Amino acid sequence: MKRTHLAAAVIAASAITAVTAAPAAAAAPGAPLPATPLKGPGMDNTRYLRGLEKLKEVDGKAGEAVVASLADIAPDFARLLIEFPFGDIYSRPGIDLKTREIAVVAALTAAGNARPQLKVHVHGALNVGWTEQEIVEVMMQMAVYAGFPAALNGLFAAKEVFDERRAAPAKGK
Amino acid sequence: MKRTHLAAAVIAASAITAVTAAPAAAAAPGAPLPATPLKGPGMDNTRYLRGLEKLKEVDGKAGEAVVASLADIAPDFARLLIEFPFGDIYSRPGIDLKTREIAVVAALTAAGNARPQLKVHVHGALNVGWTEQEIVEVMMQMAVYAGFPAALNGLFAAKEVFDERRAAPAKGK
Amino acid sequence: MKRTHLAAAVIAASAITAVTAAPAAAAAPGAPLPATPLKGPGMDNTRYLRGLEKLKEVDGKAGEAVVASLADIAPDFARLLIEFPFGDIYSRPGIDLKTREIAVVAALTAAGNARPQLKVHVHGALNVGWTEQEIVEVMMQMAVYAGFPAALNGLFAAKEVFDERRAAPAKGK
Amino acid sequence: MKRTHLAAAVIAASAITAVTAAPAAAAAPGAPLPATPLKGPGMDNTRYLRGLEKLKEVDGKAGEAVVASLADIAPDFARLLIEFPFGDIYSRPGIDLKTREIAVVAALTAAGNARPQLKVHVHGALNVGWTEQEIVEVMMQMAVYAGFPAALNGLFAAKEVFDERRAAPAKGK
Amino acid sequence: MKRTHLAAAVIAASAITAVTAAPAAAAAPGAPLPATPLKGPGMDNTRYLRGLEKLKEVDGKAGEAVVASLADIAPDFARLLIEFPFGDIYSRPGIDLKTREIAVVAALTAAGNARPQLKVHVHGALNVGWTEQEIVEVMMQMAVYAGFPAALNGLFAAKEVFDERRAAPAKGK
Amino acid sequence: MKRTHLAAAVIAASAITAVTAAPAAAAAPGAPLPATPLKGPGMDNTRYLRGLEKLKEVDGKAGEAVVASLADIAPDFARLLIEFPFGDIYSRPGIDLKTREIAVVAALTAAGNARPQLKVHVHGALNVGWTEQEIVEVMMQMAVYAGFPAALNGLFAAKEVFDERRAAPAKGK
Repeated sequence: MKRTHLAAAVIAASAITAVTAAPAAAAAPGAPLPATPLKGPGMDNTRYLRGLEKLKEVDGKAGEAVVASLADIAPDFARLLIEFPFGDIYSRPGIDLKTREIAVVAALTAAGNARPQLKVHVHGALNVGWTEQEIVEVMMQMAVYAGFPAALNGLFAAKEVFDERRAAPAKGK
Repeated sequence: MKRTHLAAAVIAASAITAVTAAPAAAAAPGAPLPATPLKGPGMDNTRYLRGLEKLKEVDGKAGEAVVASLADIAPDFARLLIEFPFGDIYSRPGIDLKTREIAVVAALTAAGNARPQLKVHVHGALNVGWTEQEIVEVMMQMAVYAGFPAALNGLFAAKEVFDERRAAPAKGK
Repeated sequence: MKRTHLAAAVIAASAITAVTAAPAAAAAPGAPLPATPLKGPGMDNTRYLRGLEKLKEVDGKAGEAVVASLADIAPDFARLLIEFPFGDIYSRPGIDLKTREIAVVAALTAAGNARPQLKVHVHGALNVGWTEQEIVEVMMQMAVYAGFPAALNGLFAAKEVFDERRAAPAKGK
Repeated sequence: MKRTHLAAAVIAASAITAVTAAPAAAAAPGAPLPATPLKGPGMDNTRYLRGLEKLKEVDGKAGEAVVASLADIAPDFARLLIEFPFGDIYSRPGIDLKTREIAVVAALTAAGNARPQLKVHVHGALNVGWTEQEIVEVMMQMAVYAGFPAALNGLFAAKEVFDERRAAPAKGK
Repeated sequence: MKRTHLAAAVIAASAITAVTAAPAAAAAPGAPLPATPLKGPGMDNTRYLRGLEKLKEVDGKAGEAVVASLADIAPDFARLLIEFPFGDIYSRPGIDLKTREIAVVAALTAAGNARPQLKVHVHGALNVGWTEQEIVEVMMQMAVYAGFPAALNGLFAAKEVFDERRAAPAKGK
Repeated sequence: MKRTHLAAAVIAASAITAVTAAPAAAAAPGAPLPATPLKGPGMDNTRYLRGLEKLKEVDGKAGEAVVASLADIAPDFARLLIEFPFGDIYSRPGIDLKTREIAVVAALTAAGNARPQLKVHVHGALNVGWTEQEIVEVMMQMAVYAGFPAALNGLFAAKEVFDERRAAPAKGK
């Protein structure tokens, strides 16, 4: 059903001449994604729609939850989050999604101050084909570059994601 | 010639019953690598020798230069640097070298406070098979996770490495 | 016994030729503020009293709570916290309080590792005249300089503050 | 003359049906900005052009230099840098440019690992109306939130910018 | 009883000719430490056993809990954690354990993004002879180098450790 | 001669009724310390004078150079730097100077983004009685908590200080 809603959102987003879908409406019950595409002359929804697809492909429901959580605090930021990281960066050809996700897991593990986002991208890494053990391996390596505490905290966050997905296998994607 | 010295060092390192090679000697002129393997009963050079090979495989001369630069300040740290990151971590099967190197490039770009080491690992990433454009692509992506300044400074460091290798193609490896 | 001493100190602190020193009263029922001003020859309470006023003006009850929480772990640090940041820095003319608070919100959002203090200063920013939307706007901008995770976590912290103040409007100040 | 070139670039950028202007061409001598606008159906240069104007308004020549320096390493990143930070974020109404710039100065001073970008934004802060003393004041305040070393290194970077502008008054803008 | 298990583990670890004890077994109920020593030709358990003793000496049960928590996510990392930080670094003569522990408390307080590890090392600092007040003193000093938020959050973590040890005096060691 | 100037500055600072010594004057040729003590009723130079003595004791000429370098950018910050870190924090009894300095060396090595300040405090650590080898030992340990790059860059900064002091033995203190 979520998928149906998303498909509808994509279709609605294509209707760039529409003038009514305010952010408030987008956050209403039934509207799965609070971020509304831009509308009007000089506006282009290409990046938004491309980003929406990429967000679904990479981060699955975990990514959608991040976007949804912005609905009542900064809906415009939800739109920018879809457009720039996913519509612009993740959609570039250059390297494949697997490489992009493991790079993010490495960077967020090393940074050590973005636990919620690290968990989203552990989901993402699993979604695009990495195994649990490979993710663990990269996190262990971060001990060399960012110290053992960063690696440990990354591993504990990963363990939470692994457990969540085992408890609700369908939830990850 | 450097290669010959290295080979000699590896052979010497195998002689684990040797008792004389003090750190001071290792730092003497002509000795290419200052870090001496451990010696004596209960000591094991397996990790050191394995790490030495891995260091050469991944980071090439750039890695050797880091080790050499420790000779007169902390020769024991040079040994630990070979043993733990390269002998223990990089030598694990789990993931391949290409993945390890791109993860490090991502992490050090995002961290933004280890420029010399980032440059060593840009060399490393190129040595194990990544293209310049793929490295640039991962660094661009770090703008999303660590901000544009971190990505910019990573790109400028990468540019220096690319230029160095074009100026002296054989130097990287 | 410590409490008795503290109460005495607070009373003594109020009596330093001061006429208006409301701070003691402001934190009212119970022991108002655990940090005691310095006493004795060569000691000067000017900075302490000035800082106490500024702390109340900027961070309101949220700031007082931080100071109070130090009472049984590091009471001297509570005094230093009032004297240096608030008595010395915040009391300087140079720039106005609004600018100071938005600068702190920006810095703590970008740093991403001081969530409790960020929340105190979101209170502070609202107390000195910024709107919720302006605070959100500055946090969104931090995505450019510190990455999307830092901006996201800042926004979620801000949301908590906004919600707290709506639930208990009088509490913020 | 620089302005003329920029105007020409803007005009060229408007020609979204043009198909030939490769990044290499953009980096050629005489082309002031290496980043080329997107072209072709489904592409929209609104953000690029808006960002280009904003970049000029805020960071002046210092910003242009950053963009130009990306020409031969990551020209696409130059475009993204114009589009997202300047076309999307800086162009939002919400808060004024002065607030945006002091927030960036505060964040980069506190972060302490992006000296070149901090200098660009000290230029930017001066360009949009802050005085040297106000910038110094905000940096001093960062000692409270990020420590004295961060504040000191920020102040030394600011001093370099102040000196540069006194040596070449017209260069800043 | 825990001590008995540990002693047994140490003895078992000495049996370096044993070939069967897989990581899975180490994590089984009753096995107090999940990290298994290396086995087989060319392997050396000297560092593991030395590290195990040092871990017990410094961090007591808090350190063991960290190691145990890795059992089902990254048992190899538990072994590396014992071997490198404790077997290699902490076992070096150069400086005494008291100095090592206060250095770690300072560094983790300043970093501000490794709260669980900071708490382990506040335990460690107390275990090797520092007083609560001395630990508080060093954390207060970190306000100068990393800002007041880092010092505050360090102090609050320390307070939790102090309270835990007062509630269960025998638990710390 | 520098000492004479300093002594003179201390004496001058005691003259708290003096009204003319503007920051500009303090920065004039021959005036060794640009930071002027506070003057006038309600002002107290106790912390300034105490801090000045402590700064000399701990960081020697390296500390004075930092203060002097602030003369023409932020002279008030020089005064605050003497008053708070040195007059307030370093002058507290709680722990000895040796412990304070090694804690700072550890923290700044781990942080990795304050190289000039790290060098000042390597001087400081040597000045208060640590040996080169002990400083190296603590920096090596930081590899565990902040990663090998942080430790390496700390060691290289330390090497510069050691070399400087060997080249000009009297300069450090």
